[in-house]
Amino acid sequence: MPKLAATPCPPYYTVIFSSQRSEGDAGYGAMADRMVELASQQPGFLGVESARGSDGFGITVSYWTSTDAIAQWKANLEHLAAKDLGRTTWYTHYELRVAKVERAYGNANTTENGATP
Amino acid sequence: MPKLAATPCPPYYTVIFSSQRSEGDAGYGAMADRMVELASQQPGFLGVESARGSDGFGITVSYWTSTDAIAQWKANLEHLAAKDLGRTTWYTHYELRVAKVERAYGNANTTENGATP
Repeated sequence: MPKLAATPCPPYYTVIFSSQRSEGDAGYGAMADRMVELASQQPGFLGVESARGSDGFGITVSYWTSTDAIAQWKANLEHLAAKDLGRTTWYTHYELRVAKVERAYGNANTTENGATP
Repeated sequence: MPKLAATPCPPYYTVIFSSQRSEGDAGYGAMADRMVELASQQPGFLGVESARGSDGFGITVSYWTSTDAIAQWKANLEHLAAKDLGRTTWYTHYELRVAKVERAYGNANTTENGATP
């Protein structure tokens, strides 16, 4: 999967998940891969971008067509189980923000999003 | 500066900057520190979060009170100069998205944002 998501013209929605990992893997790597696979099969999924530094702080940004699509992903049972383990085991701190993307530009998706600054 | 931004109750605005770094530093580290310092002095700045992996892919999310505050930051001359160097030197690919945060929750800023899922 390319690192930068090829998103369409705005508007669309995003979930920004910022988190501080606890020490040790405890199944985290396998879960993270599985969640990307699962999310990408959900209706309304547009893409995902993720980065985590050596200090354990990471940001994952997923993109969705609508808040309904986000609500469906949130209700996915396997995702719910992963979130429980996230709260109890994998993250010491996290914050999740749902936002509506209104403008987008860059040098990666120019053809796709067609938006200007 | 804490890794997670202590943002207020939504709504507020965010700039999601996703980028792939080119090889070598070429002054990047010093500029990145300076841009955080400069942004935090701007009117309407609420906070910033940033993560970059060993593969050079990174996400920086800054938070702002309004789109006017974002426009002012965008027009800052020192920021403009840094963006020019970003385009020509520091990043092979990047994408910038401006979004309106509508909901937020987590275990880090509970007191501050007071929002529920």
